[in-house]
Amino acid sequence: MARRANPAAELMQAGSHRWTLWMRRALQLAALAEGQTSPNPLVGAVVLDAQGALVGEGFHAKAGQAHAEVGALAQAGGRAKGGTIIVTLEPCCHQGRTPPCSEAVIQAGIQRVVVALKDPDPRVAGGGIQRLRDAGLEVITGVLETEAAHQNRAFVHRVQTGRPWGLLKWAMSLDGRTALPNGESQWISAPPARGWVHQLRAGCDAVIVGGGTVRADNPLLTSRGARSPEPMRVVLSRSLDLPPQAQLWDTSLASTLLAHGPGCADRPLPEGPEHLELLASEPLDLLHALAARGCNRVLWECGPSLAAEAVKQGCVQELAVVIAPKLLGGQSARTPLGELGFSAMDQVIPLSALSAEWLGGDLLLGALTPVLDPTV
Amino acid sequence: MARRANPAAELMQAGSHRWTLWMRRALQLAALAEGQTSPNPLVGAVVLDAQGALVGEGFHAKAGQAHAEVGALAQAGGRAKGGTIIVTLEPCCHQGRTPPCSEAVIQAGIQRVVVALKDPDPRVAGGGIQRLRDAGLEVITGVLETEAAHQNRAFVHRVQTGRPWGLLKWAMSLDGRTALPNGESQWISAPPARGWVHQLRAGCDAVIVGGGTVRADNPLLTSRGARSPEPMRVVLSRSLDLPPQAQLWDTSLASTLLAHGPGCADRPLPEGPEHLELLASEPLDLLHALAARGCNRVLWECGPSLAAEAVKQGCVQELAVVIAPKLLGGQSARTPLGELGFSAMDQVIPLSALSAEWLGGDLLLGALTPVLDPTV
Repeated sequence: MARRANPAAELMQAGSHRWTLWMRRALQLAALAEGQTSPNPLVGAVVLDAQGALVGEGFHAKAGQAHAEVGALAQAGGRAKGGTIIVTLEPCCHQGRTPPCSEAVIQAGIQRVVVALKDPDPRVAGGGIQRLRDAGLEVITGVLETEAAHQNRAFVHRVQTGRPWGLLKWAMSLDGRTALPNGESQWISAPPARGWVHQLRAGCDAVIVGGGTVRADNPLLTSRGARSPEPMRVVLSRSLDLPPQAQLWDTSLASTLLAHGPGCADRPLPEGPEHLELLASEPLDLLHALAARGCNRVLWECGPSLAAEAVKQGCVQELAVVIAPKLLGGQSARTPLGELGFSAMDQVIPLSALSAEWLGGDLLLGALTPVLDPTV
Repeated sequence: MARRANPAAELMQAGSHRWTLWMRRALQLAALAEGQTSPNPLVGAVVLDAQGALVGEGFHAKAGQAHAEVGALAQAGGRAKGGTIIVTLEPCCHQGRTPPCSEAVIQAGIQRVVVALKDPDPRVAGGGIQRLRDAGLEVITGVLETEAAHQNRAFVHRVQTGRPWGLLKWAMSLDGRTALPNGESQWISAPPARGWVHQLRAGCDAVIVGGGTVRADNPLLTSRGARSPEPMRVVLSRSLDLPPQAQLWDTSLASTLLAHGPGCADRPLPEGPEHLELLASEPLDLLHALAARGCNRVLWECGPSLAAEAVKQGCVQELAVVIAPKLLGGQSARTPLGELGFSAMDQVIPLSALSAEWLGGDLLLGALTPVLDPTV
C-alpha cells in the first residue's frame, strides 16, 4: 500500500504556506493606495530578516513617490542583509521617475525574493526577475498570483490593451428602470448607496458622462473630497449641444475634460473645461486618449446610449449595479443600456463573477464582462 | 441601585421559551403541506403529556382531511389527558367539513392550549379560544405570532381581503430586460432557476398569464409533477385573440381556466379550457373569482402590461425576481412592468423585506409590496 502524502507537510516543506501569509500582508499594504497610483500599479512589500522576522513594510503611495520595495528596505535598514523580500509585483529593472528596484534589492543584501505577479509592463516583463537571479538571489514567483492580478486588473488591462479598465455603474429599481417616463431619476437609491458612489469615484482616475447627462442631471461628479485630487470629469459629446451653465464647467473643485469629434471649431464651447478633439467622438478613441494621460481606471456614469456604445466597443470590463427596492414601471421609462443589436439569446453578453452585497437597504451587484480579444 | 432583571429567568418563569421551542416545531410541521391546504390555512400541532413529554404531532395536509389538532391528539391517545397542545392557529369552533377542533381538544382532556395566531376567519376569530377558556382550559396566545402570520400570509390575506395572495415572478438580465427586442426570451435564466419556478408553482393554487404570453411563448405552466393536482392554469384575456392550438388548451396534465370580460359569445374559443365570464377582464375581478374557487395564493407569470395592471389593482403582494448575469440591451426590449403612471419619485411603490439568494449562477431577489388599504 502506498504511503499517503500529507499535503500540509508538503506545503510547509516548500514554504508555500509561509509565503502565502506574508504575501497576503503585502497585498493589504498595496491596497492602501487603491485609486491613487495611476499610471503606476498598486504594489506592497514586506522585508523579513535572515531569521524570518518582520523588519520592514512598504507600499507605493503615488506615481513619482518611492516604490514599495524601496520603502520597505529603508525601514529594514541593515537588517535586510541575508533576508527575504515579499512583493506583490515583480521589481522593476528600468530607470523611471525612480531608480530600478531590482538594484535596490540587490544592494540591500537580500537573499530571497518572493513575487506574486510578473510585471506586464514591456519595459519589465520578467527582466526584473532575471536581473535578480543573475545576481545570485533566489526568486520564488506566482505566490497568490491570481489575487495580485485581480488587485492590479486595471493596471494590467491598461498595459495590455492601451486602454484604462472601464467600470460601468448605474442605479435602478427592481423592475430595471433608471428613471421615470418623464426623466425624473433623483433619487432611485438611498443615501448609503449615494455615499458609496463617492467612494467608487475616489478609486477611479476619471468619471465619464455624455452630453445628455449634463443636460438632464447637471451632475457634480466628484468624490466629495474622498480623493485628492478629485478624479478628472470627462464629458464625451457628439452633438456639442451643451448648456452654457453647468456644475461641470466650474473647475475649481475638479478638472473637467470636454472631448468631442473633429470639426467643431465653429461651435461655442464652455470655457472652463479643457477641450480635447478626438479622431471620432467614440468611447474607444476617448479611452486611448485617457490612457495616454495616465488613467488606469475610469468610471462610466452615462446614460443608456453611451453606455451601450461603451459596452459594444469593449470599453467596459466591470459592472456595478445598485438595485433599489422600488417599482417605477413605465413603458417609456429609461433603462440602463440602449441598443446592443442582439437578435438571439446565444449572442447576448454573458457576465461572470456575479457578486451581491447590501448597501443600506439597497443591493449592490457586481459582475465582469468577458475578456474581448484585444486585437479586435 | 435597582436590581437588574435577568431576562432569561423571566422568560423561563413565564414558560415562554419552552412554548417558543415547541411552537417552532409546530410551525415546521405546518410547513410540510405548503401550497396543499387551500382554501384552508397551514396548521401544525404538538401534544405534550402532563409531564411535558412529546406524545403527538400532526399537521393539516389537505382540505377535507383531518385538522392538525385531531391528528396530533389521535397520536397521543390517552396520554393527552392533563397535557398541553401547542398549535400554530387557533382551534376552530365551527362545524366545517370536519367537526370543530376545540371540542376535540376538550374531549381529549387537554389542560393547556398554546396558540400562535388567532384565526382571522370570521367563523372563528377568537371563538375557539373563548370556547376553550369557557371549558376551563388555560389558553396562552401570541407565541411566535409573527412567524405564524408570515407562514399563513396567503390564507390571512384571502380571509381579510377576499382575494388570494398574489406573487409576481419574472426573470430578467442584469440590465432589466425580460426579452430581446425581437421578443426572444428563452432562456434568460439557467436550468437551476427554471427548476425553482416549478417548485414555486407547486406552492400556488393557480398560475395566471395573459393572452400575449400564450401567443408569444405557448407555455405549459405546470409544476412538472411537483404538485398533485397541478395548480390551475389561468388565462386572463381581454382581446380573446387566442391561438387555436396551445399547450394550455390540452387539459390532460392540468386544468385550464379561460377568463374574459362580458360579451364574447360570438368569439370562437378553444374547447379544452373551462370558460369564465367576469364582470370585467381585470385582475381584481379575476382574483375575487379565484378566491371563491378556494385559491389562497396565485402566481402571476404574465407580461408587462398585465403585471402592471395587477400591481396597480393591489393584486400583487410579493415579488420574486430572477436576475441572470447577462446583458441584453435594446431600446425596445421588453421590461418587467408596463405603465404604472408615476411622474415623481415620491409616488413610486416602495418595497420591503428585500431578500437575495443564489439560484445556481443566477440571483433570486424577493420583496413585499406595501399593504394597501383593503377598503380602497
